[in-house]
Amino acid sequence: MPYTAPVEQITFILNEVVGLPDVSRTEIFAEATAETVSAVLTEAGRIATDIIAPVNRSGDLTPARLENGALRSSPGFAEAFRALAEGGWIGLAANPEYGGMGLPQALNMAVNEMVASACLALQLNPMLTQGQIEALEHHGSDELKALYLPRLTSGEWSGTMNLTEPQAGSDVGALTTRAERADDGTYRITGQKIFITWGDSDVTRNVCHLVLARLPDGGKGTKGISLFMVPKLIPDQDGNPGIANDLRVVSLEHKLGIHGSPTCVMSFEGARGWLVGEEHKGMAAMFTMMNCARLGVGVQGVAQGEAALQQATSYAADRVQFGPIIRHPDVRRMLAISRAEIFAARSICLACAVAIDMARATEDKDWAARAAFLTPIAKAYGTDAGTRAADTAIQVHGGMGYIEETGIAQYLRDVRITSIYEGTNGIQAMDLVGRKFADGGAAATALLDEILDEAKAAQTDQPDLANQVWQAAETLRETTLDLIERDLPERFAGAVPYLSAFARVLGAHYHLLAATRGGSVTLARVHITRVLPQFAADLAAARAGLEDLEALDDALLLGQMAV
Amino acid sequence: MPYTAPVEQITFILNEVVGLPDVSRTEIFAEATAETVSAVLTEAGRIATDIIAPVNRSGDLTPARLENGALRSSPGFAEAFRALAEGGWIGLAANPEYGGMGLPQALNMAVNEMVASACLALQLNPMLTQGQIEALEHHGSDELKALYLPRLTSGEWSGTMNLTEPQAGSDVGALTTRAERADDGTYRITGQKIFITWGDSDVTRNVCHLVLARLPDGGKGTKGISLFMVPKLIPDQDGNPGIANDLRVVSLEHKLGIHGSPTCVMSFEGARGWLVGEEHKGMAAMFTMMNCARLGVGVQGVAQGEAALQQATSYAADRVQFGPIIRHPDVRRMLAISRAEIFAARSICLACAVAIDMARATEDKDWAARAAFLTPIAKAYGTDAGTRAADTAIQVHGGMGYIEETGIAQYLRDVRITSIYEGTNGIQAMDLVGRKFADGGAAATALLDEILDEAKAAQTDQPDLANQVWQAAETLRETTLDLIERDLPERFAGAVPYLSAFARVLGAHYHLLAATRGGSVTLARVHITRVLPQFAADLAAARAGLEDLEALDDALLLGQMAV
Repeated sequence: MPYTAPVEQITFILNEVVGLPDVSRTEIFAEATAETVSAVLTEAGRIATDIIAPVNRSGDLTPARLENGALRSSPGFAEAFRALAEGGWIGLAANPEYGGMGLPQALNMAVNEMVASACLALQLNPMLTQGQIEALEHHGSDELKALYLPRLTSGEWSGTMNLTEPQAGSDVGALTTRAERADDGTYRITGQKIFITWGDSDVTRNVCHLVLARLPDGGKGTKGISLFMVPKLIPDQDGNPGIANDLRVVSLEHKLGIHGSPTCVMSFEGARGWLVGEEHKGMAAMFTMMNCARLGVGVQGVAQGEAALQQATSYAADRVQFGPIIRHPDVRRMLAISRAEIFAARSICLACAVAIDMARATEDKDWAARAAFLTPIAKAYGTDAGTRAADTAIQVHGGMGYIEETGIAQYLRDVRITSIYEGTNGIQAMDLVGRKFADGGAAATALLDEILDEAKAAQTDQPDLANQVWQAAETLRETTLDLIERDLPERFAGAVPYLSAFARVLGAHYHLLAATRGGSVTLARVHITRVLPQFAADLAAARAGLEDLEALDDALLLGQMAV
Repeated sequence: MPYTAPVEQITFILNEVVGLPDVSRTEIFAEATAETVSAVLTEAGRIATDIIAPVNRSGDLTPARLENGALRSSPGFAEAFRALAEGGWIGLAANPEYGGMGLPQALNMAVNEMVASACLALQLNPMLTQGQIEALEHHGSDELKALYLPRLTSGEWSGTMNLTEPQAGSDVGALTTRAERADDGTYRITGQKIFITWGDSDVTRNVCHLVLARLPDGGKGTKGISLFMVPKLIPDQDGNPGIANDLRVVSLEHKLGIHGSPTCVMSFEGARGWLVGEEHKGMAAMFTMMNCARLGVGVQGVAQGEAALQQATSYAADRVQFGPIIRHPDVRRMLAISRAEIFAARSICLACAVAIDMARATEDKDWAARAAFLTPIAKAYGTDAGTRAADTAIQVHGGMGYIEETGIAQYLRDVRITSIYEGTNGIQAMDLVGRKFADGGAAATALLDEILDEAKAAQTDQPDLANQVWQAAETLRETTLDLIERDLPERFAGAVPYLSAFARVLGAHYHLLAATRGGSVTLARVHITRVLPQFAADLAAARAGLEDLEALDDALLLGQMAV
């Protein structure tokens, strides 16, 4: 069965669970009326289902390739991309001054989910372009904005992020790409970057690279890094793509999945660049792009999980072994848990997007803190839950799940990258218990207080479910206060299970909200009985500390000494 | 880093944890002295590391293929297989009367693990041949034994299992392959089988198919099924491969992994077959083969997890990002949990093998019941733990984990089949709470009593760890008694989490045993603090029943109605 956009479920979450109507009541998002939201979701769902989804398999079977140094994208990708661009979908949340629609990120992320369900490899291109638009809106000079934003927003040009180098992955500050000042106020960029998604493109007329590099007087580490706009083709005075810049794609990676998305090794060979933001302060601008992309990647996880779950459910309804297998308790258990987790992960992502919108609309620091706190949870839990759903979808297929023609294995191969890129899920968890605890736990406890209050309020309607959510949130609050007292290495040792526990409680909270607002009480029960309870084991692991891990001999880990 | 057989860790588990010395003290296994065990493991480790592991990657890159209907295996496979055959490794546990070594299954499974770590796709061939040897030893006529067993034991010929048909997967009884009696006492087999592993081979001179088919007077369902030996080449009067039988490989599947293992669609077109066991009682014989193969598949899971963990540990020691990443708390946490789970899963598998050996040596029904009870746990937990370890190994590699050249993604692609074939892990769990509870829980409670007693005994040495194990085992005992009172559909709804809980408790038990016998107390602590605690959430899910699952609308699962 092909993917069908779950427009009703997304609409319900936006309107009833995460508070999109509050966003619509702000001045800057006044145009996001219920009618507009509904029309946008319906039309995006149609495009995702009818135009994007059909190219997903060909992207897997016919990967992007290099031909004499130029990229040839997978069959059908160019047409599918043009449909997105021409529909204005890339600029849905972008500034209307430069051709965007200025709609809320919450709506944009909902649309991104549908497109990413349909074809993850293709959707990466507009997603990264959206991140670049964000970064330029916040940090670009007026000239850069005027030149690049209209063309990126329209999808005429596309954008990339160039951070990683062979020795500089999570440790971005270890990069060695050099920037030098030229006489004309521009810069010359020299160095090699790896893992550059859509580092070249034949679906857009130009490719705009945002590149991190170090000036000769840039200090060591992340504080000496600057950000540059380095276009593939240098715009002429009319803003048309002109002469080729001194950069090239060296090679493409051969990956487990997302074969349709070219992952490039890029070489910058004295390429001309334009400063974005201030010298030596490139990380701030890159973080703007990365935060947007992190939420976007969480949404990708949800998206792929949704598509895999749909196919698995459809298969289970058709496949007969002692009756349709969808009626078998264990198969229903698998599907129900995936559906509950997708609901939870989608709610977390969209709640994060709403917080971003509210922060922008109200300039209230609490909303900004909420968005910052939810971002790593949305990224890590969205991708983990999506990966679990894709894995479960294979299992539901039995032997057929292992056969590539079935198409279900592609979801697992594709979604697996989402737990890794834009900062591994381990990095997200460390961000949560590190930087996001720097406020002494204010953002965490504010969110937990809301969950506790809501659970109390739900006790009349759903006493049983509400009590379990309250109890879990209270235990989580205690562990949070415990962790904040610890030093960073101790926190880091428990970071991943802590994030998992927080996501499970948060998901239970949104399920409970849904149940009290006309949503499925049964699905809430599935989550609270079968998904939530792991929070306790997670919190035990979160509190387990570092001592045993440090005491383990490396040779024991390696298998090269007796136990 | 290439795979290095963890001989010391395996030896420790065999001798100190699961009781191989008790096996060696029985009359029929008297030859399995400590010296023999040590020599066998060392030599098998050498062959796995030096001869088998080097072909693993070429099997992935150059899959087996059909050439004019004949199989061409991956480069190097034939030589690697010959090394196994000529070393006598295929017949390690086989009857000496037919050329086997008659050593314990526990030792055989330890050797199988090393070979499966080195190359899963290749190891499938000898593993299935071993299963066929088992089945023939128990159910074959003297003529069949005399003809086939020496040649299978020597690895001159190889064996396959032909169960699955398109409409008959888990529901074996739905098969439609027909058998008809011929005048000469043989049978004619007609039908199509799918998912036949190593259904043809150019590494052996003959391929011996054990085929399930239904005689005209065979009743419906599994009770009317008979088992036949259907050789690819019909042996002449000297036992040499003679004229071709009427069967052929129609096509090979294109799979997520184990590319070096040809997965065949087989067509039997009036092929000549010889009855194995009695007419209409083929399932009994097939279960002998399947039980052996189920434990073998659990071992495969452990094997692939071990190899992936070794590569991840080695990478983490070399990769520098803010210092070697193996020193980072979160990376150590990932590696430590994988090592603890591999230890637990390996112990469960080898304990199951010891029970098989003791049952055979003592003819004690309690040992047989123990082996039967442990088999689904070994299969499902071994493969789930192995898959988790392979997935974690990708995560440890960060972006490099997603690049196929790194080789780590192959482990996840390869191991993923082990949770599916030989009965999905859902089927294993249903077997555990269904057939294996048919004794009223006697086997389960006998095992739990041992765990409880051992935890009490360990309280002097390791009070903290022992108490946690005791408490977990007691809770598991209560849930076991609760489940046994329920009807089958209710049990099935909780089967998978119940099996997971049992495996975690069992793993903790073996860790505790190891800790009190000179093993790593720290690794036991890692397991009991970080792996065991999920048992409580698993048991909550195991008790959650069926009501919510049945109440969920299929359209909600499918994403096509509001939540």
